[in-house]
This record gives sequence, structure tokens and C-alpha cells, in this order.
Amino acid sequence: EVFHQRFRQFQYQQAAGPREAFNSLWELCSQWLKPTIHSKEEILELLVLEQFLTILPSEIETWVRLYRPENRERVLALVEDLQRELEIPEQQPQVRFTFFFCQTQHMYTLM
Amino acid sequence: EVFHQRFRQFQYQQAAGPREAFNSLWELCSQWLKPTIHSKEEILELLVLEQFLTILPSEIETWVRLYRPENRERVLALVEDLQRELEIPEQQPQVRFTFFFCQTQHMYTLM
Repeated sequence: EVFHQRFRQFQYQQAAGPREAFNSLWELCSQWLKPTIHSKEEILELLVLEQFLTILPSEIETWVRLYRPENRERVLALVEDLQRELEIPEQQPQVRFTFFFCQTQHMYTLM
Repeated sequence: EVFHQRFRQFQYQQAAGPREAFNSLWELCSQWLKPTIHSKEEILELLVLEQFLTILPSEIETWVRLYRPENRERVLALVEDLQRELEIPEQQPQVRFTFFFCQTQHMYTLM
């Protein structure tokens, strides 16, 4: 995740010129995707996960990112759990609020 | 480039659920990066090129994208040419403007 952020946050002005910028990006991208140890499928999984988190509705994205999931199944399970929770019938608003409040409190103490 | 755009522009709401969204992104990403025919190095090159264009200063990015360059050398040559052009001494502003105007006009007629 650190390498991923470094790759996406690198700025053009940090390099002496276009070739240096390109080479730095190449290095950072390699550190993130690790092509020497990851298969093409694993590289694609990382890319698709990144894009999936980007397009999630913002309330779900914020929630899922708190857990820092690292693979497809964990991400999808989190999103499905949260969507189910958001679909609790209208007649139980207090229960739903309490559940969310407790989970949120718990998560923030872990960070 | 079409596949690249489809991957980056895909919206969560286009899918019936998280698994369908993930699978669609996987399909679009595969169509863009073509892991069955591209090497890991070629996949990384496409990713780094995408990020490089994203971080370019906006006036250079706009210019470079007009040419739709498809490999590292072409992109870097374009950026270097443009940076040299932007560094023309102050005493020749009219020449520089004319050069830009002609190139821009020419490019738009090609699109």
C-alpha cells in the first residue's frame, strides 16, 4: 500500500526532466506491482482492486478502506456485508444506527 | 485507448452488484492490458505511461495527448520537444506563437 501510494502520488516536479520522471515512475510501479514475483494475474488483480475501490460509492469506499483489504474476496465480502446492512428494513432504524455506531467506534480505536 | 477509457470510466452503478462490477472491471482491464499477448514489462509500460501522462503539467499533457503516442520513446520525445520549444528566449515571442499556432491548426485538421 505504501508503494502504491508513492506511485500514484509522485509528482512531475520531483524529477529533473521527463526521462527521470518516467524512470522514477517505472521504479515505483515495479515496487508496487512486483513483476519479478507476481504473476500477470496477480498484477491485474491489484489493478482491478485499485479501480474497484475508486468507483465504489463514497460511503462504502470509506468504510471498506478502513479495513485495508488486500484481496478480491475480502473486499467483496466487506462490500456485500455493508450493502446488506444498509438494506435493513425501515422499521428498525435504531438497531441499525447502534450497530453502525458501535462498529465505527471500534474501528477508530484500532487505527 | 478505447479499452483503457472503458476501464477507467466504468461506473459501479452499471453493474448489478459488487461481484458483477469486479468481474466487469477485470474484463475491461484485460481488454486494455492484454495479458495473454503482452509481457509483464509491456503491461508495466502501459501503466507507467498512463501515470506519466496524468502527472505532466497540464499545458504539456494536453499537447502530448493530441498526438496519442503509444510508447515511451514517442512520449518522451514529444515532451522534450515541447519543453525545448517553451524555453525559446523571450526576444522571439512572435516566432514561438506562430510555430504553436501552425502546429495546433494542423493537428486539429488531422483529428
